[in-house]
Amino acid sequence: MSQGTLFIVSAPSGAGKTSLVRALLERLDGIEVSVSHTTRPKRPGEVDGVNYHFVDVPAFEAMIERGDFVEHARVFDNYYGTSRPAVQARLAAGQDVILEIDWQGARQVREQFPEAQSVFILPPSRAALEARLTGRGTDDAEVIARRMRDAISEMSHYDEYDHVIINDDFAVALDELCALVLTSRTRLARVRAGQAALIEALLSQDHGVE
Amino acid sequence: MSQGTLFIVSAPSGAGKTSLVRALLERLDGIEVSVSHTTRPKRPGEVDGVNYHFVDVPAFEAMIERGDFVEHARVFDNYYGTSRPAVQARLAAGQDVILEIDWQGARQVREQFPEAQSVFILPPSRAALEARLTGRGTDDAEVIARRMRDAISEMSHYDEYDHVIINDDFAVALDELCALVLTSRTRLARVRAGQAALIEALLSQDHGVE
Repeated sequence: MSQGTLFIVSAPSGAGKTSLVRALLERLDGIEVSVSHTTRPKRPGEVDGVNYHFVDVPAFEAMIERGDFVEHARVFDNYYGTSRPAVQARLAAGQDVILEIDWQGARQVREQFPEAQSVFILPPSRAALEARLTGRGTDDAEVIARRMRDAISEMSHYDEYDHVIINDDFAVALDELCALVLTSRTRLARVRAGQAALIEALLSQDHGVE
Repeated sequence: MSQGTLFIVSAPSGAGKTSLVRALLERLDGIEVSVSHTTRPKRPGEVDGVNYHFVDVPAFEAMIERGDFVEHARVFDNYYGTSRPAVQARLAAGQDVILEIDWQGARQVREQFPEAQSVFILPPSRAALEARLTGRGTDDAEVIARRMRDAISEMSHYDEYDHVIINDDFAVALDELCALVLTSRTRLARVRAGQAALIEALLSQDHGVE
């Protein structure tokens, strides 16, 4: 069994990250999105263990104390974090794992999983980003301007990533995202570990051909 | 304009390398196989500049003297080589370039193009390799045994490559080979060079949203 690969996917709001990751999961087997822990209340329709692992603040803080998080952050009054034991168990089982996190989380993850592959998704133009952040035209200017500042702040870290995908044509961007995963699966170390018996048979000097 | 990527593709005879590369060229734009120089006689149907650059021995040896070859080898009485200026010009024009060469050529190329991406193609089983090398059953045992030894010798260098593709299901192997090319195109350095204007516009603090 060869170890899976950890992928870090970041993007500003409005770049289409969630749609791309969902389509990736439909196309490829052997890859899954890590389910985060959070202390925020469960919303209607959300399922514990699927959308998030919902825990209370003392439980979350105990996990921080134990160093259980690969990365965690506090957003307003809520904690969000990625459990290290959960990620490690999936990778050890040969699954590829995606973390959808921001640039700050990505930095924390890279320190602990230096072999992680990271990709930043950019919108195709400034106008497209503005259109997506403006939404249905019902939000006030102040809210939209704040979203734009947040998006620019997130995008300013694109150059900390191994790969950058521009989500102009969705199908092309999806091909590029899937390509990253396939490419990780043909890496020498992974094939050598996963196909040891085949390789030994191929290299055997016992010819079998007379 | 961003620089193209150089790909080294090696395989034993019978692994399906030529078919895979041909199918890759049909699927993707912006990539081409480098045309080698050779001193062997042109065969019927071959075209100078397409199949090979056909040159005579003094011309080839003068190119060796000038250090014009990324890699070259003598096979029986004929020289084969890859011209460095030709490869560099295509890469500088933003084209991806494939070199179909053996492990010895690959070593020479890696020294001069350390950023080249190398991939080794393996057959799916010992039996499949033997079947392909046995051909139509008209060759004598000695010839087949020699092909098998050559294939094993070539395969014994698989672990000098960045990636290994097992050509079991042709469509899967082709996806994996195409994925390598797409992945090289989303690398940070390449996107940063090729999309500088877009990135500058995205990161501009001049909001445009009121």
